[in-house]
Amino acid sequence: MKPDPARLNLDAYPFTVEVPTRFADVDPLRHLNNVRLAEIYEEGRVRLHLAMAVEGAREKGSRTVIAQLTVRYLAEGFYPATLLAGGGVSRIGGSSYEIAQGLFQDGRCIGTCDTVLVYTREGRSAPLPETLRTQLRPYQLRA
Amino acid sequence: MKPDPARLNLDAYPFTVEVPTRFADVDPLRHLNNVRLAEIYEEGRVRLHLAMAVEGAREKGSRTVIAQLTVRYLAEGFYPATLLAGGGVSRIGGSSYEIAQGLFQDGRCIGTCDTVLVYTREGRSAPLPETLRTQLRPYQLRA
Amino acid sequence: MKPDPARLNLDAYPFTVEVPTRFADVDPLRHLNNVRLAEIYEEGRVRLHLAMAVEGAREKGSRTVIAQLTVRYLAEGFYPATLLAGGGVSRIGGSSYEIAQGLFQDGRCIGTCDTVLVYTREGRSAPLPETLRTQLRPYQLRA
Amino acid sequence: MKPDPARLNLDAYPFTVEVPTRFADVDPLRHLNNVRLAEIYEEGRVRLHLAMAVEGAREKGSRTVIAQLTVRYLAEGFYPATLLAGGGVSRIGGSSYEIAQGLFQDGRCIGTCDTVLVYTREGRSAPLPETLRTQLRPYQLRA
Repeated sequence: MKPDPARLNLDAYPFTVEVPTRFADVDPLRHLNNVRLAEIYEEGRVRLHLAMAVEGAREKGSRTVIAQLTVRYLAEGFYPATLLAGGGVSRIGGSSYEIAQGLFQDGRCIGTCDTVLVYTREGRSAPLPETLRTQLRPYQLRA
Repeated sequence: MKPDPARLNLDAYPFTVEVPTRFADVDPLRHLNNVRLAEIYEEGRVRLHLAMAVEGAREKGSRTVIAQLTVRYLAEGFYPATLLAGGGVSRIGGSSYEIAQGLFQDGRCIGTCDTVLVYTREGRSAPLPETLRTQLRPYQLRA
Repeated sequence: MKPDPARLNLDAYPFTVEVPTRFADVDPLRHLNNVRLAEIYEEGRVRLHLAMAVEGAREKGSRTVIAQLTVRYLAEGFYPATLLAGGGVSRIGGSSYEIAQGLFQDGRCIGTCDTVLVYTREGRSAPLPETLRTQLRPYQLRA
Repeated sequence: MKPDPARLNLDAYPFTVEVPTRFADVDPLRHLNNVRLAEIYEEGRVRLHLAMAVEGAREKGSRTVIAQLTVRYLAEGFYPATLLAGGGVSRIGGSSYEIAQGLFQDGRCIGTCDTVLVYTREGRSAPLPETLRTQLRPYQLRA
């Protein structure tokens, strides 16, 4: 259940984006809410995909969908300090790939997220096109 | 990675709550957004905890925190149909327990969620008190 | 600045929808958050428009956009009690119309909302078609 | 209904904060959602209050609550461009004050927001203490 220690280091991630916290992220326990942290991981993933510019690499009519999301909560996060969301590609499979993320606040890793994305055509999983593989490779997690 | 088939049946869950979808749950792909589905699982968990009335069963100064959340997306969900969130206790451990959930729309299971909750005192994990165990047991997942 | 006293009565509104509160609606002040109340008013407006089925009444290529939103906060709202969102048409103008809403919890009006919607074609305000007027009229606020 | 033209200029506001848009701010119409814009105005107001450090200036047991919120939507906003939220104090009254805001994207004002805040003690409106007035004055809207 514990995350790989390598994942707790911002240097592990080839891509980083700053995500300022919002007051709306805070819940009645006065910390960053678990669900809103999932929103911030979503933001990190979308920005990573924009950076990889993988959209052009996908076939017309294809759709990449989230099959599974696993979030580990390692420490509380607070408002108003900014978050750093590190991200990278942790697996390139036959018809799916995985994104690994780490969330950092004040130099401390407060959680990790692993997302399985499935490439689909006409509603069924389909092989990742070579163009897409080519774009994912430079963003693989550093060993 | 596939969920246990038993989890795809609403009857598996000892507790059910109706959660109407909101327009705000819909994203640019015109389906229920992944993060908003996590919000709906949160709602199901909070309602389950209110039903179990476990709050009284926890010691003063204790705090139950989410350590891990795993969401599986099995089918798209849509607005404005209502969701049924089934939930139950899938594991009672030494200092943690797990909640298993299934989300249903129009009779179909659109996803499952597994949450690991850790019981803590003074910021460290602590044994689940017997009073809490007693309240969790009647809500265990049906075999 | 005070709302019309008639607006504080659920009977004033020709349309009503139940909106259960969610834990995610609660903020660090432990009441229903102002912005999340705006989300609930949005939900009431969308459900009212679905009930009026005005969509068919609008011309192809037209778009109805929100120009102004005014929310009055009259009392705190709380979780987990359900909200009742009353709504109706308070004005039918040349190229715009207004929706009046009231939000009720435990029999008490906790706020009102007034929304100005502008009918546009090709990005400019345009006259409301007669078909649309015909559908709005039965939902006018009761005097 | 139209906002004062002076309000469309970022220079009018003594305080400015950058708020990056999030994918979660986008709705099925593929623009920034009206309610999420309200969340961003909330963020601008909270950051303005943190900058004014008015919290110390308020009496123990007092509470400042939002009585009214008026949002004008002037143009669509989009993802992923950043927003600039300008804000200032537009009125200092006996027991209330008002915050005026403007939201800017790519050099264009996409909307304004006016918020009436009431100072309360023991659940009733109460005179603004002189310490609070002193802190609000330097943040008044530029004429």
